[in-house]
Amino acid sequence: MIEKEIIKAIEGAERIAILPHVFADGDALGSSIALALALRKMEKKVKVYIEEEIPRTFDFLPGKEFIEVFKGQIEDFDLILILDTGDLARLGKRVDIFNNKGYTINIDHHTTNTEFAAINHVDTNAAAVGEIIYQLIKSLGISIDQNIATCVYVAIATDTGGFRYSNTTALTHQITADLINNGVDVSKISQIVFETLPYKKVKLMGLAIDTIEISENGKLAFITVTDEMLKKTNASDEDCDGLVNIARNIEGVEVAVLVRQRSKDEFKVNFRSQNYVDVSAIARKYSGGGHMKAAGCTINGNMEEIKQMLKKDIKEVL
Amino acid sequence: MIEKEIIKAIEGAERIAILPHVFADGDALGSSIALALALRKMEKKVKVYIEEEIPRTFDFLPGKEFIEVFKGQIEDFDLILILDTGDLARLGKRVDIFNNKGYTINIDHHTTNTEFAAINHVDTNAAAVGEIIYQLIKSLGISIDQNIATCVYVAIATDTGGFRYSNTTALTHQITADLINNGVDVSKISQIVFETLPYKKVKLMGLAIDTIEISENGKLAFITVTDEMLKKTNASDEDCDGLVNIARNIEGVEVAVLVRQRSKDEFKVNFRSQNYVDVSAIARKYSGGGHMKAAGCTINGNMEEIKQMLKKDIKEVL
Repeated sequence: MIEKEIIKAIEGAERIAILPHVFADGDALGSSIALALALRKMEKKVKVYIEEEIPRTFDFLPGKEFIEVFKGQIEDFDLILILDTGDLARLGKRVDIFNNKGYTINIDHHTTNTEFAAINHVDTNAAAVGEIIYQLIKSLGISIDQNIATCVYVAIATDTGGFRYSNTTALTHQITADLINNGVDVSKISQIVFETLPYKKVKLMGLAIDTIEISENGKLAFITVTDEMLKKTNASDEDCDGLVNIARNIEGVEVAVLVRQRSKDEFKVNFRSQNYVDVSAIARKYSGGGHMKAAGCTINGNMEEIKQMLKKDIKEVL
Repeated sequence: MIEKEIIKAIEGAERIAILPHVFADGDALGSSIALALALRKMEKKVKVYIEEEIPRTFDFLPGKEFIEVFKGQIEDFDLILILDTGDLARLGKRVDIFNNKGYTINIDHHTTNTEFAAINHVDTNAAAVGEIIYQLIKSLGISIDQNIATCVYVAIATDTGGFRYSNTTALTHQITADLINNGVDVSKISQIVFETLPYKKVKLMGLAIDTIEISENGKLAFITVTDEMLKKTNASDEDCDGLVNIARNIEGVEVAVLVRQRSKDEFKVNFRSQNYVDVSAIARKYSGGGHMKAAGCTINGNMEEIKQMLKKDIKEVL
């Protein structure tokens, strides 16, 4: 069994590096820190290398003492654990740590994982890598304390969209029950991770809502963001994340499209569908890609022309 | 034990009425229908009387065949089960059913419950009445099928704010794990219950966001709704629900206030606090009330005067 091999490798190692994917999210960070906290309890020397600074949302997580933003420094490790990372490109510059020295273990849940390490533990049924790490920590015989529970909780709660996505299983809730028994502050964490928004993002939401156009008997919704709107609200590109969902969540809407200005005549387009439309087919027409219900592409032209063109495409499949 | 008495009463009854509270929410409806489905499996004759039509959000729930909107008709029942109802006033006109005939059992989780029935089963540790009903159905020896699981899931998920409020316990998640094992469609239900919004509400949100005023170093946020905004968006009073949370969830905000026009010079005020301010004290000053972090009142005057007055009150406690 793979888990036994992993335990053996961990037990035999002294210096251990943990590498989550670039632009580390709640699952990548929460899983990495939870594992680091557990390995410290086993008297291991542990470092978690990340590619960018921790996003402000996850600033409250314990375990800061393990975390280093990678600046090119290379240390030798006996063991390198790569978490929530589908392929080596997702390690960014930290691939140098992977290539340097030390046994490598890849722990992930992406169906697209390329199995790039010496040991590859890829459980595609896991809603979050946090679930796999929780079970590994248990198997290592380490008790789940409040800090570990908090990190695993953040990993699981974020990757399941707050227990709302279809990846949420009975096991997800069983593990979460145990985490709460070990002291997770559910309402505090939920407020920080799911509710709190920067003011500039809220203002951008307000302006974006004003642009919503509904057509095709309420089944198609366009929402747009211009350069001017970003300037007016002092918002940046990352504040556009999630705006397309405001349109998708309108009662009766099947396809939602966010058209977002990137430069004078370059537009980034995000598509979402609710039930039956395969939006990846539309995105591919413009050299983009994605999944059936979430896809994107980049189109050059002007806003109105692009909207008319996309409206025609979408009408055909509605 | 109270549960044994309840089981005995149910087993001895033939005709059973279930009464949730007025303006039945997800917990009241989900618990009532789940229990009705279970009692039918015991060959009981069951009716669920509600005060108003089922809100559109919960229209997808199974068990419509049990539900009757009360129009004054009185039938005789052997047993009347009152769910999620703190006191008799919360039964509305259906108090006539309660007063008519039949043994009465009150199953609730509100700390303020007035214990108005022959048997009162009030578990204030339960996050939702759905948790109590789940355990009762198990104790009755009835298996949890997909329809029952769906109703209990809606009850629990809504009353915990999607497993985010501080009432969420390990038991909440343990029960939910079992519900998922019995066939709950998590992503479909979550989309309907938590994500989908009517277009008029989204438009009202957009206009309301444009009114946000932040002051006191980012700690105080006002958000306003005028008659004109409701007219322009074709929205109604119920579409204002939750608007105050947009302001409360802005990074750094401690107190959020929604001032909402009810008539030319009457304004309804909702207060929310994030951490330390007791907003019920401010609401009480204007003959309102509520809890520490959520309170409300009604004030006569004009919008600007009211805002200045409240700003002065809140400044003192920030």
